[in-house]
Amino acid sequence: MIIGIDIGGTNTKFGLVGKDGEIAFRGSMQTTGYAQPKEYTEALVHHIQPLFEKAGGKENIKGIGIGAPNGNMYSGCIEYAANLGWEGIIPIASWINESTGLPVSLTNDANAAAMGEMHYGQGKGMQDFIVITLGTGVGSGIVANGKLIAGHNGFAGELGHTIIRPGGRLHPGTHLVGSLEMYAGAAGIVMTAIELAQSNTLPTQLNYINPKELTVKQLFEYAKKDDPVAIRTFELTGEILGEAFSNFVHTLAPEAIILFGGVTHAGELLRQPIIRSMEKHLLKVFQNQVKILYSTLPESDAAIVGAAGLILSV
Amino acid sequence: MIIGIDIGGTNTKFGLVGKDGEIAFRGSMQTTGYAQPKEYTEALVHHIQPLFEKAGGKENIKGIGIGAPNGNMYSGCIEYAANLGWEGIIPIASWINESTGLPVSLTNDANAAAMGEMHYGQGKGMQDFIVITLGTGVGSGIVANGKLIAGHNGFAGELGHTIIRPGGRLHPGTHLVGSLEMYAGAAGIVMTAIELAQSNTLPTQLNYINPKELTVKQLFEYAKKDDPVAIRTFELTGEILGEAFSNFVHTLAPEAIILFGGVTHAGELLRQPIIRSMEKHLLKVFQNQVKILYSTLPESDAAIVGAAGLILSV
Repeated sequence: MIIGIDIGGTNTKFGLVGKDGEIAFRGSMQTTGYAQPKEYTEALVHHIQPLFEKAGGKENIKGIGIGAPNGNMYSGCIEYAANLGWEGIIPIASWINESTGLPVSLTNDANAAAMGEMHYGQGKGMQDFIVITLGTGVGSGIVANGKLIAGHNGFAGELGHTIIRPGGRLHPGTHLVGSLEMYAGAAGIVMTAIELAQSNTLPTQLNYINPKELTVKQLFEYAKKDDPVAIRTFELTGEILGEAFSNFVHTLAPEAIILFGGVTHAGELLRQPIIRSMEKHLLKVFQNQVKILYSTLPESDAAIVGAAGLILSV
Repeated sequence: MIIGIDIGGTNTKFGLVGKDGEIAFRGSMQTTGYAQPKEYTEALVHHIQPLFEKAGGKENIKGIGIGAPNGNMYSGCIEYAANLGWEGIIPIASWINESTGLPVSLTNDANAAAMGEMHYGQGKGMQDFIVITLGTGVGSGIVANGKLIAGHNGFAGELGHTIIRPGGRLHPGTHLVGSLEMYAGAAGIVMTAIELAQSNTLPTQLNYINPKELTVKQLFEYAKKDDPVAIRTFELTGEILGEAFSNFVHTLAPEAIILFGGVTHAGELLRQPIIRSMEKHLLKVFQNQVKILYSTLPESDAAIVGAAGLILSV
């Protein structure tokens, strides 16, 4: 069995993961409220102690896998993670290894998602695939030749920050211009809907909502009610994603691109335009080959299971 | 020793490659003029016979590596190579293996270039790098985790066909719109120069040349003579390449991007704008890390040596 840990900005979730990715036992704790990362780490080790017993002893645990924002696979450190409120470089993998004696592996959330798909999900048996996480941000994890691609500095797979509209929208966080995340991340999708609604080119109920309060979830609901702007918003988002995917395919020639995260609730409304647009922008030699799949891992468990998968890959 | 073979549209070059990438003996033959690919292959095997003796016997030859347009590493076949004038799928690696008894590996030209850099050039000792060939076309070979990335269908690394200017120039061959090759391939660079010259925004001698006869080589010469349009052309080309490179870095986090091919004769006139533009479009975590290098392999030998390198990688 493997212990999987998902460190989020607010909560940390963990679980004891079995051979087929089932979670035998789970728990959680707050990430915030600790004066120092070291104290947080000590509390975390304390919280996962019960998992050792549940596994029938520490000797039955193969290792501890951790997914965390800005987690560096090579160093086992969380580096400059602004949204965890931790400064500098935190050697969390070695701290946990020292206090538990177990092998510990760390990576970022999107790479953990890729490991989850590889060992327990849609990527099972594939040597080459990409996982794209579509939520607040657009993250990604790349598997090629059966291995996670971390690159020279450990941070490869930032596909959400590739440029897709030169001279386009400015990202308030990264200051990059025209990057994919500004079109396919939650804020970008809402921005597209507002632009469309305000252009008055299509009838819509969205004009009755305060633009500052509009969410992707509301867009799902309006799309279900056949609101033309809501539907067109997902089409446009899919078209831009499909263009970006053609770039990823020309680069990596994956067997599949697996989509994960809240935005995938848009279903075929998003997936069909992605496929049409991607195919349109591909060389013949790549056409009708790359599967666009939605993850089937339960969203609440995927991060834990993915972190556990990391232990099977090192 | 290894036999390296470079199959080009007009000529086929081959050589006996030693441990450090030195070519002990070399030869060439025409690619064209054979009724069938099978006859071409028989002639090729005949032509490389003398290399066996030069090596002191076939038993001293580790294998035969081949670089060819549309060469598929997985199948050992040349697939639909329009510019070789061969139709369908040609199992050239297995034909040569059958008649020589030696291990034979095949890949496309850009991947062969990457193997050359990996074993004998700038990529020596690197686990993660990208080779970009800048010539008539824009090709690429990707190495990650110390291995060539061929992807699911064997054709990964088509970075020249990624979109960099949505809605931009139409590629007459691929029919893709706004792909990198239309800006950084030879025809694209010439097009940029003509557009600039005709816009009359900068003084230039280029207006005295028939646009249909303008070449990149002439642009080098005019740039050396400080022609403002010629200089600006390489700057603009570098800026677009730098933007594209930021996408490749966000995807793969390479240690270096190694540039190879005729267009690199533009030297710092091209390299400096590439670096400035790439850095501008990178997330902080990637800035000032990725080396932009020019290949130091002799251009005439690189394809032979790269094909030989393939044998060391499989």
